[in-house]
Amino acid sequence: MTHEGWLKEAIKLATTSVMNNQGGPFGAIVVKNGQIVGQGNNQVTSTSDPTAHAEVVAIRNACANIGSHQLTGCTIYSSCEPCPMCLGAIYWSRPDKVYFAATRLEAAASGFDDALIYNEIEKPPEKRIIPFHHIGLAESKQPFDVWGSNTGRIDY
Amino acid sequence: MTHEGWLKEAIKLATTSVMNNQGGPFGAIVVKNGQIVGQGNNQVTSTSDPTAHAEVVAIRNACANIGSHQLTGCTIYSSCEPCPMCLGAIYWSRPDKVYFAATRLEAAASGFDDALIYNEIEKPPEKRIIPFHHIGLAESKQPFDVWGSNTGRIDY
Repeated sequence: MTHEGWLKEAIKLATTSVMNNQGGPFGAIVVKNGQIVGQGNNQVTSTSDPTAHAEVVAIRNACANIGSHQLTGCTIYSSCEPCPMCLGAIYWSRPDKVYFAATRLEAAASGFDDALIYNEIEKPPEKRIIPFHHIGLAESKQPFDVWGSNTGRIDY
Repeated sequence: MTHEGWLKEAIKLATTSVMNNQGGPFGAIVVKNGQIVGQGNNQVTSTSDPTAHAEVVAIRNACANIGSHQLTGCTIYSSCEPCPMCLGAIYWSRPDKVYFAATRLEAAASGFDDALIYNEIEKPPEKRIIPFHHIGLAESKQPFDVWGSNTGRIDY
């Protein structure tokens, strides 16, 4: 299967997602060694879960199937350019690469906030539309100290 | 309860997360009208889910409790500055505001990639450490067209 072929499969998932009223028009597939190891479509409104974007659902599905929190050796095919949440999920799951069909601007033209969020990230936290306030506390570093001294910890 | 008080509760969740070997040193709480409506701690390694960061777990928990994919009127308290994935999840769930204790630089000092991912976002997609390749197809816009003509769609 070519990259274009896998992308067409992701686009089919995106279209089916809308036709089944599961959520937004997005689909994603995780491929390893020429085989699908995970897939997902947007399920935000049908599951009341704002994090249930296609890529997140596909990554969680692939990790459950593989039994690992890492997608080493995998390629993710998405019907649309990943939003910042999904970009972050991709970095934390560490696949080899990503291919996408539609762009963030095409998503924005259909009413999705991807481009807005990309712009918000670069603002000072307290100046964002949703303000992020930093309050440093004496206890702030305590969890990291406990983590550092936990010899049984599993890094990720 | 003061903002500092809620942050201390989130920090307690972060420390407990490590001591129980559930995952990384992070905790988050969702508060509405002075009451906790959702909470979470990092569970990446214990659930093999790279998206199970404290904020994502707390948002999913709050949305399940409230029965909505939106956190209007809520405040999120996190033991640490949200990573880009969690920032995206926050924007999609639309709480009123966010308070955090430790910063992304303090997280990076303990080996967490938050700051790296913030830097990666601003790069051209194909130049990232994990390359994001755009392949425009004739079918790219089809899911958005189906979405636009679906009068029964639920916007989010």
